Amino acid sequence: VKIGEVMTGGAVGEVIESRNPKFQPGDIVQGMFGWQQFAVSDGKEVRKVDPALAPVSTSLGVLGMPGLTAYFGLLEICRPKAGETVVVSGAAGAVGSLVGQIARIHGCRAVGIAGTDSKVLHLTDELGFDAAFNYKTTSDYRARLREMCPSGIDVYFDNVGGVITDAALWEINVGARIAICGQISQYNLEQPEMGPRLLWQLIVKRARIEGFLVFQFASRYREGLVQMAQWLKEGKLTYREQFEEGIENAPRAFLGMMRGENLGKQLVRVST
Amino acid sequence: VKIGEVMTGGAVGEVIESRNPKFQPGDIVQGMFGWQQFAVSDGKEVRKVDPALAPVSTSLGVLGMPGLTAYFGLLEICRPKAGETVVVSGAAGAVGSLVGQIARIHGCRAVGIAGTDSKVLHLTDELGFDAAFNYKTTSDYRARLREMCPSGIDVYFDNVGGVITDAALWEINVGARIAICGQISQYNLEQPEMGPRLLWQLIVKRARIEGFLVFQFASRYREGLVQMAQWLKEGKLTYREQFEEGIENAPRAFLGMMRGENLGKQLVRVST
Repeated sequence: VKIGEVMTGGAVGEVIESRNPKFQPGDIVQGMFGWQQFAVSDGKEVRKVDPALAPVSTSLGVLGMPGLTAYFGLLEICRPKAGETVVVSGAAGAVGSLVGQIARIHGCRAVGIAGTDSKVLHLTDELGFDAAFNYKTTSDYRARLREMCPSGIDVYFDNVGGVITDAALWEINVGARIAICGQISQYNLEQPEMGPRLLWQLIVKRARIEGFLVFQFASRYREGLVQMAQWLKEGKLTYREQFEEGIENAPRAFLGMMRGENLGKQLVRVST
Repeated sequence: VKIGEVMTGGAVGEVIESRNPKFQPGDIVQGMFGWQQFAVSDGKEVRKVDPALAPVSTSLGVLGMPGLTAYFGLLEICRPKAGETVVVSGAAGAVGSLVGQIARIHGCRAVGIAGTDSKVLHLTDELGFDAAFNYKTTSDYRARLREMCPSGIDVYFDNVGGVITDAALWEINVGARIAICGQISQYNLEQPEMGPRLLWQLIVKRARIEGFLVFQFASRYREGLVQMAQWLKEGKLTYREQFEEGIENAPRAFLGMMRGENLGKQLVRVST
């Protein structure tokens, strides 16, 4: 994004005027409209949202990209099997919180890593994670992972990268699968960070690290949304949204997210 | 291996005496007999070698573990498609030299990385690699890889790790597959080496890094050996063996291999 351009971002809103026969005034639509109160779109990569299904804000979270990222990233990239241990970093975020819950639905032990005690409590007490810890108050990540994953780590779903990912790599089991969904610890560095070379561990453990973008699964979004909506209806999935009021506060919400201040999906209400 | 124990290693030899009905004196057998002139075995994980098929030494190379490692590592872990570019490090070694040739058989562009000019010539002039370079006389690996892989890297078969692997990771295409077969640059370090954190590149490129051990494919060894023997017979595969004479010179041969002095499979003749 260049200075002066509209900041990129997903949004959901109401069609006010349309010259596209696919959309009528009053339709609720979701797309990459950017940080603005009104947007003009050619209708490509815009999808209609059914407001009867759930609050329309969920089209940006559990029933949108974060939900699909968790669903396909965990199930397709990591292929967890019942009884396995799934560790998620950034576990209280929009994606991570769903990954742990989907892991539980599939019969796995879900262990979350987050950055505040209240997030840790949220994971274990509200979302049903089997265990979780606050990495900011933990000195020995490997020891904590061993304690919380007595059978080792079969799946590691990574949103953060860096030293937390190093620790997880040390504790993986034979045949482990690691999905790289995000590397938030690395995005804002002025200098690229150095870390220990651990690829040899993949040989010893016959393990796999795979990066992905949710767009790879575009042809299957419908399947994912139907399943997530079903789990929501059955009460098997819980989600949290955090609203900032007013577009003028969007930068603050964004920076807060980068600092890990959000619990669940960070949203900004730009009109009512 | 503890001091005083027999050094571990694969060997091929003749059965002198047997109380196991599966083996008769005169049979040629291959197994992990260690560095010794005579060995006692319970017959487990010992396979008979057909001396009519090829020189029995090939049971330690192209028709043995190195051959199977190249075959299954490339075809099963990397799944190369015709027209793709396959880069191999340690390309003049027992495994790497076969990986490039199998890639060529499958219609891929094969690019090798090796540590002497004579190895590079061997790869391009005798083994049919499309391109190769000497990393010891190259300062900018990334630039050299870009030059030799004008369409980018689709498959990287890694025997070495370290800075060469960093460079390859920078140059991968979307959907790339990286097999970690060896990390020889890392094995003899007194301090674990640090390197740049590059996992974010796996997200951008939706790419995969997978470690493996040939034993994963034990149930399919026969299929691999039959195919490799067929390619040998058809003249599609070339292999090189380098003999050291006398068991007293085995340590020298081993250290030479660790330093990259061997071309193809390093062997030691312990009796005639």
